[in-house]
Amino acid sequence: MTPQSLSEIPTPALIVDVPAMQRNIARMAEYFANRPCKLRPHFKAHKTPEIARRQLAAGSCTGITCATVAEAEAVSAVCHDILIANEIIGGDTCERVALLSRHHRITIAVDSAEGVREMAKAADRAGVSVGVLVDLNVGQDRCGVAPGPDAVALARAVVDAPALRLRGLMGYEGHLQGIHNRASREAETRRSMNQLVQTAHLFRDAGLPSEVVSGGGTGTFDISGNLDGMTEIQAGSYALMDTDYGKLGLPFEYASYVMGTVLSRPTPERCVADCGHKSCTKDHGLPDVRDLNGARVTALNDEHAVLSLPATSTIKIGDRIFLIPSHTDPTLNLHDVLYAVEGDVVLDLWPVAGRGYKPHK
Amino acid sequence: MTPQSLSEIPTPALIVDVPAMQRNIARMAEYFANRPCKLRPHFKAHKTPEIARRQLAAGSCTGITCATVAEAEAVSAVCHDILIANEIIGGDTCERVALLSRHHRITIAVDSAEGVREMAKAADRAGVSVGVLVDLNVGQDRCGVAPGPDAVALARAVVDAPALRLRGLMGYEGHLQGIHNRASREAETRRSMNQLVQTAHLFRDAGLPSEVVSGGGTGTFDISGNLDGMTEIQAGSYALMDTDYGKLGLPFEYASYVMGTVLSRPTPERCVADCGHKSCTKDHGLPDVRDLNGARVTALNDEHAVLSLPATSTIKIGDRIFLIPSHTDPTLNLHDVLYAVEGDVVLDLWPVAGRGYKPHK
Repeated sequence: MTPQSLSEIPTPALIVDVPAMQRNIARMAEYFANRPCKLRPHFKAHKTPEIARRQLAAGSCTGITCATVAEAEAVSAVCHDILIANEIIGGDTCERVALLSRHHRITIAVDSAEGVREMAKAADRAGVSVGVLVDLNVGQDRCGVAPGPDAVALARAVVDAPALRLRGLMGYEGHLQGIHNRASREAETRRSMNQLVQTAHLFRDAGLPSEVVSGGGTGTFDISGNLDGMTEIQAGSYALMDTDYGKLGLPFEYASYVMGTVLSRPTPERCVADCGHKSCTKDHGLPDVRDLNGARVTALNDEHAVLSLPATSTIKIGDRIFLIPSHTDPTLNLHDVLYAVEGDVVLDLWPVAGRGYKPHK
Repeated sequence: MTPQSLSEIPTPALIVDVPAMQRNIARMAEYFANRPCKLRPHFKAHKTPEIARRQLAAGSCTGITCATVAEAEAVSAVCHDILIANEIIGGDTCERVALLSRHHRITIAVDSAEGVREMAKAADRAGVSVGVLVDLNVGQDRCGVAPGPDAVALARAVVDAPALRLRGLMGYEGHLQGIHNRASREAETRRSMNQLVQTAHLFRDAGLPSEVVSGGGTGTFDISGNLDGMTEIQAGSYALMDTDYGKLGLPFEYASYVMGTVLSRPTPERCVADCGHKSCTKDHGLPDVRDLNGARVTALNDEHAVLSLPATSTIKIGDRIFLIPSHTDPTLNLHDVLYAVEGDVVLDLWPVAGRGYKPHK
């Protein structure tokens, strides 16, 4: 039985405010409408094919970005052109990418000779061609080769593999997304992403393909997306937003909430709801509380959110509360389904299809 | 196709070292074998019916503890006597408890007149009897009524509801589980849980049933479990353990690991694996690394674990690494299945049946 209204939804639950989400999606598409740089929305933020479909439908997109092969498999139902912006190593992951490449345009990232070799072998065996971006370390110090000659050498190894097709390069300035001061964020991002653009020039000078120069996120979409030479931005969180990105003054609204039920009000200054951190992560800090004036989350335990209240608060046992996540991506990852709502009306249930780490079929 | 050996398991994956887990389960059962106080293992730690089955099979148990109705439904396949150690409020939760009570001995916690009224109504409508414990605030300041007369008044309300059966009281000293110093932990726990035992005396003096006095956890099992008047301990984490409880010098071993694959080794001092915090939480701090001498997790991003390495480390792209979770409960909650292994051999796949917040059927 599908719930018809908010009050019928069992808690804790992840609620998507569809009109707010649509406004976010439209605003981002509009930003990229008349620019050389386009958008490749990151699926990892929501893992929800229906949201990806709406992002593509809004226009200005080159395709979808994914973080894992499982996400690419999930989004392949609604998207033909998929970038897995991550190294593909181990298990059956290269075989699964090759399989996807039969009917989709798939591009992966590499930062090592091993990565080139594994994917080349699987693509060759499957008789498919797989696109490749060289992954550049633009300062995040996670994966990625150093800008400059190392990147060019790796690009040549890709070109030498007949089953691989070099498309260009990518780099993620993840370490800069959260800088609050706009001027500092802008300066740091330009410095970081110029390394990517400069290495693209090296590719061109060496006669290597570089039609794709990919990177960026929600915090830098209008900085990296405004940089000469960038071709696409991998922003994801903008569709649903969270309080962490909310601090940056971006033109996007909160569009997702964790809904809980008040289980207890032991004192006038405290209530406890059933939406703990198994339904809402706290890796970017405690979530905010929507609507309830003066209410604040003081603890998020496994199954309980503890709220401090003004003693005059009229909130009572059985009432619903709404938390605004501090970090959308891992919060959505905790849910199997999103409730798509408009006001109090439940429009639809959207499966979070790309979540979890499924065992072998 | 079920993987036969560790190397065939797709990553990231949650690995249970079955012999280590069995030793933990046996040690805990042994502690309670010849005591008046017994064990009621907490299902929320793993949400895995097969582990609950083994905990019950080891003996010394009164039944299983759950945190949610969904967990109780999941464990009802292997356990008859279930305590939902939480307030049951809102939606169809009371109806589901009543349904479970047809064929199982179910007990819930209450800390309000509303909680008593809702459950009494649902139990009455279903023609079943539901057990009730009064939930006492023993200092955690989450749910629970104050020790003393308030608790007695609420107990009377339970006794007045014909479809409810008062069984006693519970209190969770969750705020004391993590005190490192054994003497302090012991003193604080005795002080906290004596409030529970004293309120049980008030119940008895008032002619109210108090055959169950329930509480405790892995950090206090041999403190609260050794206190005159306690009848059962709700420990859960002892079966799989984590680095947070590992600091307490308890007689339990690490028995669960998040296995990842090395995707990148960009520098001699750094590698990156595919087991980020969508597969391993960091709410109790970054996880430890097993085996790899001198390796340390420096960041746990959504899909990436970043490790610092001694430059001499021979770890290479494609190798498997094993993280020891800092907090078992929410880490297990991220997985749909556990891989039960002995050494390199996969013995079985165990569904994490009680996880997630399922939409209406």
